[in-house]
Amino acid sequence: MSSGKINVSVENIFPLIKKFLYSDHEIFLRELVSNATDATLKLKHLTSIGEAKVEYGNPVIEVKIDKDGKKLHIIDQGLGMTAEEVEKYINQIAFSGAEEFLEKYKDSAKDSGVIGHFGLGFYSAFMVASKVEIITKSFKDEPAAHWTCDGSPEFTLETADKTERGTEIVLHIAEDSLEFLEEGKIRELLTKYNKFMPIPIKFGTKKEALPRPENAGDDYKTEYVEVDNIINNPNPAWTKQPSDLSDEDYKNFYRELYPMQFDEPLFNIHLNVDYPFNLTGILYFPKLSNDLQIQKDKIQLYQNQVFVTDNVEGIVPEFLTMLKGVIDSPDIPLNVSRSYLQADGNVKKISNYITRKVSDKLKSLFNENRADFEQKWNDIKIVLEFGMLSEAKFYEKAGDFALYPTTENKYYTLAELKEALAPTQTDKDGNLVVLYASNVELQHSYIEAAKEKGYEVLLLDSPIVSHLIQKLETDNEKLSFVRVDADHVDNLIKKEEEQISRLSEDEKTKLKEVIEVVVPKEKYSVQLESMDSKAAPFIITQPEFMRRMKEMSATGGGGMFGMGNFPEMYNLVVNTNSDLATSILNVENETEKSALVKQALDLAKLSQGLLKGEELTAFVKRSFETLK
Amino acid sequence: MSSGKINVSVENIFPLIKKFLYSDHEIFLRELVSNATDATLKLKHLTSIGEAKVEYGNPVIEVKIDKDGKKLHIIDQGLGMTAEEVEKYINQIAFSGAEEFLEKYKDSAKDSGVIGHFGLGFYSAFMVASKVEIITKSFKDEPAAHWTCDGSPEFTLETADKTERGTEIVLHIAEDSLEFLEEGKIRELLTKYNKFMPIPIKFGTKKEALPRPENAGDDYKTEYVEVDNIINNPNPAWTKQPSDLSDEDYKNFYRELYPMQFDEPLFNIHLNVDYPFNLTGILYFPKLSNDLQIQKDKIQLYQNQVFVTDNVEGIVPEFLTMLKGVIDSPDIPLNVSRSYLQADGNVKKISNYITRKVSDKLKSLFNENRADFEQKWNDIKIVLEFGMLSEAKFYEKAGDFALYPTTENKYYTLAELKEALAPTQTDKDGNLVVLYASNVELQHSYIEAAKEKGYEVLLLDSPIVSHLIQKLETDNEKLSFVRVDADHVDNLIKKEEEQISRLSEDEKTKLKEVIEVVVPKEKYSVQLESMDSKAAPFIITQPEFMRRMKEMSATGGGGMFGMGNFPEMYNLVVNTNSDLATSILNVENETEKSALVKQALDLAKLSQGLLKGEELTAFVKRSFETLK
Repeated sequence: MSSGKINVSVENIFPLIKKFLYSDHEIFLRELVSNATDATLKLKHLTSIGEAKVEYGNPVIEVKIDKDGKKLHIIDQGLGMTAEEVEKYINQIAFSGAEEFLEKYKDSAKDSGVIGHFGLGFYSAFMVASKVEIITKSFKDEPAAHWTCDGSPEFTLETADKTERGTEIVLHIAEDSLEFLEEGKIRELLTKYNKFMPIPIKFGTKKEALPRPENAGDDYKTEYVEVDNIINNPNPAWTKQPSDLSDEDYKNFYRELYPMQFDEPLFNIHLNVDYPFNLTGILYFPKLSNDLQIQKDKIQLYQNQVFVTDNVEGIVPEFLTMLKGVIDSPDIPLNVSRSYLQADGNVKKISNYITRKVSDKLKSLFNENRADFEQKWNDIKIVLEFGMLSEAKFYEKAGDFALYPTTENKYYTLAELKEALAPTQTDKDGNLVVLYASNVELQHSYIEAAKEKGYEVLLLDSPIVSHLIQKLETDNEKLSFVRVDADHVDNLIKKEEEQISRLSEDEKTKLKEVIEVVVPKEKYSVQLESMDSKAAPFIITQPEFMRRMKEMSATGGGGMFGMGNFPEMYNLVVNTNSDLATSILNVENETEKSALVKQALDLAKLSQGLLKGEELTAFVKRSFETLK
Repeated sequence: MSSGKINVSVENIFPLIKKFLYSDHEIFLRELVSNATDATLKLKHLTSIGEAKVEYGNPVIEVKIDKDGKKLHIIDQGLGMTAEEVEKYINQIAFSGAEEFLEKYKDSAKDSGVIGHFGLGFYSAFMVASKVEIITKSFKDEPAAHWTCDGSPEFTLETADKTERGTEIVLHIAEDSLEFLEEGKIRELLTKYNKFMPIPIKFGTKKEALPRPENAGDDYKTEYVEVDNIINNPNPAWTKQPSDLSDEDYKNFYRELYPMQFDEPLFNIHLNVDYPFNLTGILYFPKLSNDLQIQKDKIQLYQNQVFVTDNVEGIVPEFLTMLKGVIDSPDIPLNVSRSYLQADGNVKKISNYITRKVSDKLKSLFNENRADFEQKWNDIKIVLEFGMLSEAKFYEKAGDFALYPTTENKYYTLAELKEALAPTQTDKDGNLVVLYASNVELQHSYIEAAKEKGYEVLLLDSPIVSHLIQKLETDNEKLSFVRVDADHVDNLIKKEEEQISRLSEDEKTKLKEVIEVVVPKEKYSVQLESMDSKAAPFIITQPEFMRRMKEMSATGGGGMFGMGNFPEMYNLVVNTNSDLATSILNVENETEKSALVKQALDLAKLSQGLLKGEELTAFVKRSFETLK
């Protein structure tokens, strides 16, 4: 038996690191600017605890393109490196400088915001550069060092004559990466990844108008001066205390995050937790439309103010991916798979924390200003209803603030709804029947009929509402939901009283025969009912159960297998107490009789939105002819 | 100046390799089964060229769970390794055995299907295992070797008493990865990644019925026998020659690829190219609905029969991501970013090749059986129209087969369309005006009016069709598209002839005044026209330009900025030659006059689908009352 140590061959691993370290080459700039930030923050920390006896000053990081020389420079004024440190941190791949630093200054460094893992991030430079130079001068009194490497594992290290403190990285951009010499591209990357990093980043200069002198005459021309162009905001709102921010500050930050969007957020939730994980951030509730897909993935994920991704799937619960805003946490593992993320304990805690914060905020908004909350309800309901369906804990909490609006713009909680409707809408078996409409326009005549009976009608128009209704019925005994056009109004909520029929049984049989000659059997089943004589003579209804099952299977999951393909089923309710029913029976001429039934059927179809195409054209033509 | 070699520290890089090598931990099984396949194919090659003097036989790869021992075994009957080879291939990370093998046997090995990069893939085992053992016996006459490593860089290597040729990998599954001891999980992974790998993979056993003996009596009970459960199909259709495959074979393979889907593909395209890149595959055109998003990403990408991903974004042009099927190519770089993919020369060639093959296939389908192609058009048009808009080369080729169907189910190519319509639909300025409808039901009365004039009406109902129309107009001089309800039929295609007005100018002015009292100005602009006396008296039209711009900005891009938010604009066309126009003028009673205009407006609104809600309810109620 022998034993030994696995050997990592540099020649073989080096190309792999260059190629596979990050799947996205543009990441190199984020890594190098992160390193520069890191070096600056470390110096700040060392001066603050008196370990470095130099002036910290107002350091900036500069990114500079040298297009002719095909070079990109990243220059910081941070703590710099001695030759010995270059040997240690650069020549030993994966020797993480930041980790060692944190270990050494554990307690004092906690809040200094040290970012990266120096070792590996630096090598991402080779994804875009054929040759990389480091010119660096430590804050310590030692000569500057100049390190050069052409992407092979060979390097050279010599002294340099740099006198200012800090590190300059020079990338000799490779032929296949010349895009990174374009000003527009670099600006895009800096804006994407470094917009909120904590040290000012200079990229070029810009002209700024000088203030107009007080004694300026009419012929005064504005004078301009060249100033550094700082591309980032080093102190973004989420790093501040909620008590230091006004409503306007939150709105301004929203505009900073989404400069191309012109909507206003409805409200925001400031996240701030230290233990057991570290997380800050601001989430915004935007106005939401019913198309869930296009609104996802607007939340930006940062780590210590460095942009990581705008895909927070797995980190926030799915229903909250439709919010906007920022989450910043060093405790979310990067470069790992979604399935790994979902299994990670910290990530689970973060997800639960966010869900809880969101429901707490909603509850307090509801309690503090209900009228305002009701006004916002229609813009946020889709997220909340989706959350109620997908997260059991959120469903529980939502009982306190989830609203059920009526077509008259009254807003009930479920408890209030039950109380309000109990006297009028309890049927003969003791079930509370909640009537709802999905569209006030399309179901107008049915809503009117219900209102005339003294019933209230909810307006439930989210695409997933059939699933929510189903859940509410399951969880609440003796509660059922019925859409207003599911039957004629006397049948929607069955009471004890019986309407007396104007027609005899014989007449009814005859009437049904007459109607069934004209009405296609395969489309409508004729249902004779003794209703109020003033109710519509013909009404088309669509039974609740089948319709809901079809809707559920159309909006993904639920319903019954294959139900989505069932044909639409309608009933034709004929009011035997209407004058028209009597007229149909009494008309002698067969052609006239048929025409009467046909016209009545067409009118009932119109009310249910079923008169279309050729039939509608014929109806309109016929009607125009009777007009003139 | 000093120089030296960058040092990769094993202690530091090893955890990184374990953690970051693949973002998805489940990949380990694919890698290990790939290695096993690789070792078997290598042996096959060496025996075929006489380099290995052993019997190749019918080797299988076995995957075995030992739940009690918390171990997972992967056993092959391939070429095995000597202790020396273990030292070389396993202990030197990133020393790619496959590369060296290919280098050595360059010419003869080309088609042997050697898969992986042995070195690194193997280490993915440590993503799920706390300890890994290799027990391996080379086909060479040398003792077996037993290698053990617990995830630190330390290993032990000793001789083993294994006598059969091949390699057994034993994973001691780590506590955080116990899911990989579940039969269901392993079955799922093998089905996902290894379903079409070229060596049979055994996972457990299954019962198989023995054939009924000929002399079996009535009381014969079927007897069963345990057989190996082979989970893969080592010879999938795409690896065969098109000439060896029937239509039925292609359909069967479709069902094999998508066992949970019950649709039939419309047709398929067999891809097969050796040079300048290697690619095989079968693409299927499924029936497509108008919802583009949910149909994406069904194409599976393989490398030498190993499943890689079902995200082919960047590899096939976007419009073809809606197809289904398989692409197998060793020339597509893996684990790289999409932006890198899109810049890769080979990938670009592959993408162009696929686009060309698709357009060639469409052209030949069109030429060989036009009737059949026409029948399929509506199921595939959404992809093709999207392709015409997004790929210039495809747009060019599509001229030969892109179809423009009429509401009467005639199908024209653009050239045919121009020829057919020129005599009847050229306006007085020499422009060819193509009329179209987007919905035969909703625009029925307008379509009828156009047909009565002898015009043909196209049915263009894709969601992106307004963009395509816009493009066709730009690329074809003197060609314009107008939707049938954009104006009344005489104005859609303006001819020289002028209709004579039945009304005097004074009467017209008076008529307009009367109508504008009833018709809300902010919604409709009243337009008096002398039309055929039999045409509808009132018609509501929606001008083409604004409507199209709104549609274009609603379906993403194009149109004019902010146009999507403009209110809908309608005209009310009044036929001054209609009897109704005269009646309105002649009625004395003001109430009756208003009622007449109101009823006519309601009927026009009905035809355009604009009579809704309260207005519709009132209309129906009024109509029921006149009936009885």
